[in-house]
Amino acid sequence: MPITEPDTLSPTLQLAFALLSRPSVTPDDEGCQDVMIERLRALGFHIERMPFGDIKNVWAVRGHHGPVIAFAGHTDVVPSGPPAGWEFPPFSPCIDDHGMLCGRGAADMKGSLAAMVTAVERFVARYPDHDGRIAFLITSDEEGPAVDGTRAVVEQLRERNERLDYCIVGEPSSTERLGDVIKNGRRGSLGGVLHVRGVQGHVAYPHLARNPIHQAMPALDALVNEHWDAGNDFFPATSFQISNLRAGTGATNVIPGDVEVVFNFRFSTEVTHEQLKARTEAILTQHGLEYQLDWTLNGEPFLTAEGALVEAAIRGVEAVTGKRPALSTSGGTSDGRFIATLGAQVVELGPLNDTIHKVNERVRASDLDDLSRIYEATLQALLTTDEVCL
Amino acid sequence: MPITEPDTLSPTLQLAFALLSRPSVTPDDEGCQDVMIERLRALGFHIERMPFGDIKNVWAVRGHHGPVIAFAGHTDVVPSGPPAGWEFPPFSPCIDDHGMLCGRGAADMKGSLAAMVTAVERFVARYPDHDGRIAFLITSDEEGPAVDGTRAVVEQLRERNERLDYCIVGEPSSTERLGDVIKNGRRGSLGGVLHVRGVQGHVAYPHLARNPIHQAMPALDALVNEHWDAGNDFFPATSFQISNLRAGTGATNVIPGDVEVVFNFRFSTEVTHEQLKARTEAILTQHGLEYQLDWTLNGEPFLTAEGALVEAAIRGVEAVTGKRPALSTSGGTSDGRFIATLGAQVVELGPLNDTIHKVNERVRASDLDDLSRIYEATLQALLTTDEVCL
Ligand SMILES: [Zn+2]
Ligand SMILES: [Zn+2]
Repeated sequence: MPITEPDTLSPTLQLAFALLSRPSVTPDDEGCQDVMIERLRALGFHIERMPFGDIKNVWAVRGHHGPVIAFAGHTDVVPSGPPAGWEFPPFSPCIDDHGMLCGRGAADMKGSLAAMVTAVERFVARYPDHDGRIAFLITSDEEGPAVDGTRAVVEQLRERNERLDYCIVGEPSSTERLGDVIKNGRRGSLGGVLHVRGVQGHVAYPHLARNPIHQAMPALDALVNEHWDAGNDFFPATSFQISNLRAGTGATNVIPGDVEVVFNFRFSTEVTHEQLKARTEAILTQHGLEYQLDWTLNGEPFLTAEGALVEAAIRGVEAVTGKRPALSTSGGTSDGRFIATLGAQVVELGPLNDTIHKVNERVRASDLDDLSRIYEATLQALLTTDEVCL
Repeated sequence: MPITEPDTLSPTLQLAFALLSRPSVTPDDEGCQDVMIERLRALGFHIERMPFGDIKNVWAVRGHHGPVIAFAGHTDVVPSGPPAGWEFPPFSPCIDDHGMLCGRGAADMKGSLAAMVTAVERFVARYPDHDGRIAFLITSDEEGPAVDGTRAVVEQLRERNERLDYCIVGEPSSTERLGDVIKNGRRGSLGGVLHVRGVQGHVAYPHLARNPIHQAMPALDALVNEHWDAGNDFFPATSFQISNLRAGTGATNVIPGDVEVVFNFRFSTEVTHEQLKARTEAILTQHGLEYQLDWTLNGEPFLTAEGALVEAAIRGVEAVTGKRPALSTSGGTSDGRFIATLGAQVVELGPLNDTIHKVNERVRASDLDDLSRIYEATLQALLTTDEVCL
């Protein structure tokens, strides 16, 4: 029988239930942050709400001096789609017969939020006068435009010259078992929308037209085959992918006057977005194209190659799981890209990501208890001189 | 002041007015064929209506033996679009202050139909016992699907083993001045819809996907650069044009699973459509594409390189304009492609085509009188031994 009443569960799972029962689809928070604030305030955190536009954000700090270690995360979730597609209702959490906590946000990332709060509760109980400061940076706009969420909070902190030394983002970084992967960076993402102009005409009179599809192909092929960089120890080689092509009105006898090409770079720290732009435009120009190109920098790459945070997180994982995590920079972008601009060391560490953004999102219930202990051990490694033990 | 009452005009222009005042947008004939039938019956033509589906067609013949020379044309016109875009109402013909007959269909091709009828009227008055047979093949589905129109009538004639030696299609062939160009053939048209399949994925994980855009480009570039043939004295080289490209859902972070490419060959008599298909598929296969390709043969090429009809038409134009017309096979397809399959010599000879399918379609009124005389002189050259004179 699935467990639907959390009363007998661990504090971490009880809190996860409380968060998962709120249908906080982006940009709605649905009171999730209030639940967290109540717990943090009881621990002596100074709470600062930082709403921007429709987006609710919280910046909470405990302690008055020393290095700041922040837990970062989001209370919003992606839509569930039709509930009928789910084995259990998406916003009525339960633990199924296989010990899996089920519900939208279980893995991304309300489970992590619950684990962070209970980790800090235990840590503060044990070290009420800990060195340094513990902070929470919580947003309700990570799955959406991500403009008025973490990005805006970070700009506010920057203006106030707030210190931020270490940040653990609760994104689900694990792939096969809890803690097997810590993400210590992310590739940059640079998007381009290219319009190549030709001269429209009738297919029966090609000499009166200039087919922009024909013109663009050799240039696009050159972009696909360009060796942008070789990557480095932490990043794979920069990749170029065309995601969308549009040309023609549907009429089969008209040579179109324009072709639209949407492409995306995922780039390493071996190139800058300025270099990618310049090299792309040089290739287009070499091919004699008449074009317009609009760029969108979705995120700079960031990397926390080594340092106290990475070491502490590794020791935290090892203390709980007995196995050494791998470092990785793969995957999409995350709010870590914004936080890293403050000069903070940033890692992402959370549960398994195999069901995120899908129907029947779920996470092993015991993994959240273990994740809470990993976060606690990481705090211990960073803020105490004790041997890491739980 | 524009002339809106045709009473004082030539018989050709009066008949053109009668046809132009009927809004016979494809497939509707709106009584245009009845108007023509009345005139032809009065000349002793045997009238045979050949409706197919919703399409009205007429096959009319005068005479009982000897070579058959047919005038071919269509009473349907393309839509006018909003009448407000027109200087004069599109279905209220008038002659403007510059001597231009204005109205939808003036050039394509009710003006030609009127000129054909009056040419035959004068010719029959002069040669009531002419050699050979004069015929009319009139459809109301040239601007539409062109399935139940000329094509169906031709199939009917083929089944009955009807003779058709010469055909003058009234399509507007002239470019700068009346009769400067006679079309003595048309290129073939072969269309293809190509789907190249890849493996959909996320741009952040390109190694898990296979981008069909990236795969297709070198193959498409090879098709664009292929030397299909060199053309010949009558046809330019066969041309390949891509008219439409579609790939991607609009999402900028998704590698699409499929790309659709719509292309078109305009081909000479130096290659067959079977050869073009085989060579295209060989190039796609050489590039290792996983693809599906659907072909549509819009028309085989046809050519009336020389012979009695071309000679007669040239003499007819020279007799009226004093200038020798050029022969051309350029432009789109026409119903001539169907008629040529009967083994007939086919030419297209009509007024200037600069305003066809546009708002404010118009043709010089005096050109229609001259065109009628060109048709008459052509009949004279073909069916009599008289010196061509009018
Ligand atoms: Zn997330
Ligand atoms: Zn026409």
